[in-house]
Amino acid sequence: MLKPSIAVSRLAEKQRTSRRQLDDLLDSTPLATVALVRDGHPVALPIGFVRIDDEVVIHGSTGSPWLSALAGGAPAAVSVTILDGVVVARSGFESSFHYRSAVLFGTFETVTDDKVRYLEILTDTFIPGRVAELRASTRKELAATVVLRFPIGPDNWSLKISDGWPEDPESDVAAGGWAGVVPITTSYGTPMRAPDCDESIPVAASVRALTGSVANRRR
Amino acid sequence: MLKPSIAVSRLAEKQRTSRRQLDDLLDSTPLATVALVRDGHPVALPIGFVRIDDEVVIHGSTGSPWLSALAGGAPAAVSVTILDGVVVARSGFESSFHYRSAVLFGTFETVTDDKVRYLEILTDTFIPGRVAELRASTRKELAATVVLRFPIGPDNWSLKISDGWPEDPESDVAAGGWAGVVPITTSYGTPMRAPDCDESIPVAASVRALTGSVANRRR
Repeated sequence: MLKPSIAVSRLAEKQRTSRRQLDDLLDSTPLATVALVRDGHPVALPIGFVRIDDEVVIHGSTGSPWLSALAGGAPAAVSVTILDGVVVARSGFESSFHYRSAVLFGTFETVTDDKVRYLEILTDTFIPGRVAELRASTRKELAATVVLRFPIGPDNWSLKISDGWPEDPESDVAAGGWAGVVPITTSYGTPMRAPDCDESIPVAASVRALTGSVANRRR
Repeated sequence: MLKPSIAVSRLAEKQRTSRRQLDDLLDSTPLATVALVRDGHPVALPIGFVRIDDEVVIHGSTGSPWLSALAGGAPAAVSVTILDGVVVARSGFESSFHYRSAVLFGTFETVTDDKVRYLEILTDTFIPGRVAELRASTRKELAATVVLRFPIGPDNWSLKISDGWPEDPESDVAAGGWAGVVPITTSYGTPMRAPDCDESIPVAASVRALTGSVANRRR
């Protein structure tokens, strides 16, 4: 089995090699899509993740067959993409998107030694400040949860960023049509109280802090 | 090679079999992640897509090696996921996300007979009304573009939707912490004019219509 190339094959000028820019993307969304091979066929597993230092970390039920396959060392590709805007050019051909996209290649391994810390970072990344408001996890909950980590190495990832203006040929510019970029913003809205949560209970501070914040840029 | 199971293995109660709900998801985001196998290794290709009737349609450069592999019939999994909210429970264990996620299994084929129409639908889905504002594609542009379609069949897809309230055990509810859901909304912002677009040129009607609209719900 060959190692996948990390060279961007199309629009190579959009490839980035900056680890800081990779981290910025990985810290700007909780959603990854993990590709793996099952019974010879490609499958895809969308899953929440966080970056912890030089690792991509996911978690889930010990009963998940796909997580079990990953824990067993199945080769994986972790894909993280954010759409940042619509590039409106003067032709369909030149129109496109602003995006940041990373694909990381490697294998996961199970976190055994430091599981509580990893889970707390997961929770506190998805909802900053939430761990301090919650009871500790029970032994039963910890036993039902698998945490997997995936190394971010010096050469196992590919990052592509599209953030420029439309590049229309002169003849299209001269024709006088409008061109530009429409930004796409993802944000957290107004919290909705659960039916079993009494009206007298104030909205948690972590949730108040999340409300209105932008989700597709690094917090 | 076995056919991938479309049965949801974890949280099976979240599986949906409604084609209408599948279409609603596919019509609510332009972003898919395509998993395929290259040199024995899983890889992932994020790409813009549209649904046209019973097909998932992508396009790109004829020079793209991964699109060429897909055009050649490489087995693929198409993953489309939208995060709709953060489920804030009274424990880390019960906290999660509202999401809609589909994975479709099959192979792409090249569109040859009806390429102009497919490309116009792509443009008019990403920016509704844009085609009428643009010149026609040139022969050169069409020759440089490959359009691929992927069938949505009766049994080649799996849909999972999480849209409920936190399900905390009674003891956690009684402890009195806040619980609920924080919605996640993706929207199109204020258009930014390209540097080569004269200030006297009005913003295109299609772009004005896009501005402020929600991107993670069906238009």
